[in-house]
Amino acid sequence: MSKALPTRSENYSEWYNELVKRADLAENSAVRGCMVIKPYGFSIWEKMQRALDDMFKETGHSNAYFPLFIPKSFLSKEADHVEGFAKECAVVTHYRLMNDPNGGGVVVDPSAKLEEELIVRPTSETVIWSTYKNWIQSYRDLPLLINQWANVVRWEMRTRIFLRTTEFLWQEGHTAHATEAEAIAETEQMLEVYATFAEEWMALPVLRGIKTPNERFAGAVETYCIEALMQDTKALQAGTSHFLGQNFAKAFDVKFQDKEGKLEYVWGTSWGSSTRMMGALIMAHSDDAGLVLPPKLAPIQVVIIPIYRDQNQFDQISAKVQELMKDLKKRGISVKFDSSDAYKPGYKFAEYELRGVPVRLAMGARDLENGTVEVARRDTKTKETVALEGIVDHIEELLENIQQSIYNKALAFQKDNSHKADTYEEFKEILDTKGGFIYAHWDGTPETENRIKEETKATIRCIPLNAEAEEGVCIVTGKPSGRRVVFARAY
Amino acid sequence: MSKALPTRSENYSEWYNELVKRADLAENSAVRGCMVIKPYGFSIWEKMQRALDDMFKETGHSNAYFPLFIPKSFLSKEADHVEGFAKECAVVTHYRLMNDPNGGGVVVDPSAKLEEELIVRPTSETVIWSTYKNWIQSYRDLPLLINQWANVVRWEMRTRIFLRTTEFLWQEGHTAHATEAEAIAETEQMLEVYATFAEEWMALPVLRGIKTPNERFAGAVETYCIEALMQDTKALQAGTSHFLGQNFAKAFDVKFQDKEGKLEYVWGTSWGSSTRMMGALIMAHSDDAGLVLPPKLAPIQVVIIPIYRDQNQFDQISAKVQELMKDLKKRGISVKFDSSDAYKPGYKFAEYELRGVPVRLAMGARDLENGTVEVARRDTKTKETVALEGIVDHIEELLENIQQSIYNKALAFQKDNSHKADTYEEFKEILDTKGGFIYAHWDGTPETENRIKEETKATIRCIPLNAEAEEGVCIVTGKPSGRRVVFARAY
Repeated sequence: MSKALPTRSENYSEWYNELVKRADLAENSAVRGCMVIKPYGFSIWEKMQRALDDMFKETGHSNAYFPLFIPKSFLSKEADHVEGFAKECAVVTHYRLMNDPNGGGVVVDPSAKLEEELIVRPTSETVIWSTYKNWIQSYRDLPLLINQWANVVRWEMRTRIFLRTTEFLWQEGHTAHATEAEAIAETEQMLEVYATFAEEWMALPVLRGIKTPNERFAGAVETYCIEALMQDTKALQAGTSHFLGQNFAKAFDVKFQDKEGKLEYVWGTSWGSSTRMMGALIMAHSDDAGLVLPPKLAPIQVVIIPIYRDQNQFDQISAKVQELMKDLKKRGISVKFDSSDAYKPGYKFAEYELRGVPVRLAMGARDLENGTVEVARRDTKTKETVALEGIVDHIEELLENIQQSIYNKALAFQKDNSHKADTYEEFKEILDTKGGFIYAHWDGTPETENRIKEETKATIRCIPLNAEAEEGVCIVTGKPSGRRVVFARAY
Repeated sequence: MSKALPTRSENYSEWYNELVKRADLAENSAVRGCMVIKPYGFSIWEKMQRALDDMFKETGHSNAYFPLFIPKSFLSKEADHVEGFAKECAVVTHYRLMNDPNGGGVVVDPSAKLEEELIVRPTSETVIWSTYKNWIQSYRDLPLLINQWANVVRWEMRTRIFLRTTEFLWQEGHTAHATEAEAIAETEQMLEVYATFAEEWMALPVLRGIKTPNERFAGAVETYCIEALMQDTKALQAGTSHFLGQNFAKAFDVKFQDKEGKLEYVWGTSWGSSTRMMGALIMAHSDDAGLVLPPKLAPIQVVIIPIYRDQNQFDQISAKVQELMKDLKKRGISVKFDSSDAYKPGYKFAEYELRGVPVRLAMGARDLENGTVEVARRDTKTKETVALEGIVDHIEELLENIQQSIYNKALAFQKDNSHKADTYEEFKEILDTKGGFIYAHWDGTPETENRIKEETKATIRCIPLNAEAEEGVCIVTGKPSGRRVVFARAY
């Protein structure tokens, strides 16, 4: 059996790193800050992609593909945008290598220098809006509802697998609208798509909110976000949706003729979610024995392990299992029969626990006699012996139950770790002793926000969308405030 | 109605360019040689991806993801490989921009120069084999069967949408095996997967063959390919599968312990297919009115257009159509009801012809009376009036029929344009008057191959796998040859 993981209470960060590695999710590559997503990890990502993609299509969006490279001059067209991304981008300057005349292998060919440098996209607003200029002439061309699945590169100094990597995979939606109201409605709709995905698929309860100007996307008028809580009580932003106003339309001169024949600038949105969600999924639910996957995102939902002493027993078990597998597959349940004889059942149990398979069935000689099977659920680590008769219904219900139960547990955790603070002292004490989401009054200025960040490392995660009006005073300056915002230390 | 396309006989190349643009498949971007794949084009690509991905998984492969960037030193580790790719690669040299101290916008920050340049992957053998070194220790770790969907960059001087672009989308399979025989079997299996996909999904008959050493993938021991014929009688390579021998295992020191405990180098394969197939799909079947799509790859398989004089007629038609759509969708047929009143039916007919929708239904007042519908098929441009009763079965059969019929037409074209040449004179005459695949004897030397290429622009497309032994003499040198190879001018 492989060595146990570090525990969460011992060292949360090491636990995460080891879990990512040992569960075969991903690893660091030879290229600084870039990860390799391994087959098992990628199969989870594929499930996430498929679910999100279906939701995008149901809300009327189509996929398309835009270039990896952005001419340097494009990036500069929106002032805030270039300010936000210029400091962390990979720059292509040459298009050819040559043999080193001094015999040192291959070197950059100095004669193949680009006239204008190309930036590897950190996000695609600029290259997409330069394209939209040609696609949009009239109100009949609107709304334009497009999404792209792509890799992007941001030259991060401190990287962490899935959470912050130089290259990551994501989807970015880019839409164009005739009116401000319609663009805002789109921004809010896509935030709700992300929240629904987080809650219903990832079993991850989230806060829906708006970012402060400090934390806004570079080039946006308003940034909406969903924020989740990890088991170490730190927050993690799991998706953002931006109302771009007419900023990119103006930067790229994208106008349309409205029904009255008047030329107007187009209104825009963009919204993105990335492989970072893999990090959230892992950190929100898993335990010291390994991954805990919500059934809807588990590549293998049920694993069946035979326990036998001889070939005859194995054959009998195998015959029963084949039948059962057929029935499970008919219901759309993904199931694996691990019949390999290279490892003992106990070793297999631990391996599938590590990989977060939601339901484990074990069948042995006594089960054969009694017409039963042992059913173990990963999330609660409980076991029961169940009659084979009606087992398919039982498993189907169990999977739904597990999905709901993982969500409920995370929701209870979020509630237990949401606090109110009315003074700065109280705020700091909660932050240092409990962490979590702290609801507090803030005077609305970036100065106060920055001071709190510098002094406590807590940031304003969001101004919650559902926050009720409440008169109060800023915990730092004592100035009046109309409602509480949510602070946390965050990934 | 939009202007007619150029015809194929007038100007095949212009016809292709205009068709790609007008059918909303793709367009050139502001970045030299990079394309934008538009939503309609991308939805065809998604269908291709889904079908191929299913076939890869059925043959035991898993998807994973490897970094976009390749350290320059990795590329150099396999001598032939670097030779093949060094002259056409995008090189990242810096990781930050800064404000121009002279006020000229943003410029590359000279202090942010990479110690080692990074190459944007032109293909991923090197970065993947450097990873496999850590994944493979024992025969138990083999075979390793991995595929990746990704973007790659090759700095092409002359580009053409879909056919040859600086950035393109593709999949690349990379497998590792314990024995030579197993690796060769994998190479051949994946060639057959590509051939099956081309024939059964793209309705495109292909030759299966082996490349000559001249045309081999840089770093491979043997390159297998599928070759298709376009309507202008030029050939197009639509997928390749490479037996890599132990070349990359040796370059990256990837060894495994076999069952006897001996350390051996691993055997490898790689295989790829790309958005180039979109070009093949378009050029093989389409006609002067626009795209002709095989139903299995058509994003919209059936379009329904109402023909009405007043709201009452429209409502009656619409009610019938809703019913029909429900029934069609139940069978998994994708259907669109174009009820917009912005355009006249004739305009719509032309638009869906341009976009290659396989079946068009039109329903008017007389159809309402008679319980009929007009059914038009795109490939033959024939129409018939059909009773609504039993229409769903009729359409299902029709779609199968169209799929087969497009394939048969392409197969007949391939046969009509396959020729034998026994002398160089004859060869050149066929090439200039008829084109197509020319089966001829060749002495097996790169010198003769190069001479033919220089003198005629024809290349050896492949040594066909199913070629029968036939004694003959090389058309150029008169030296003996054991079987014919296939020449063509090619994309």
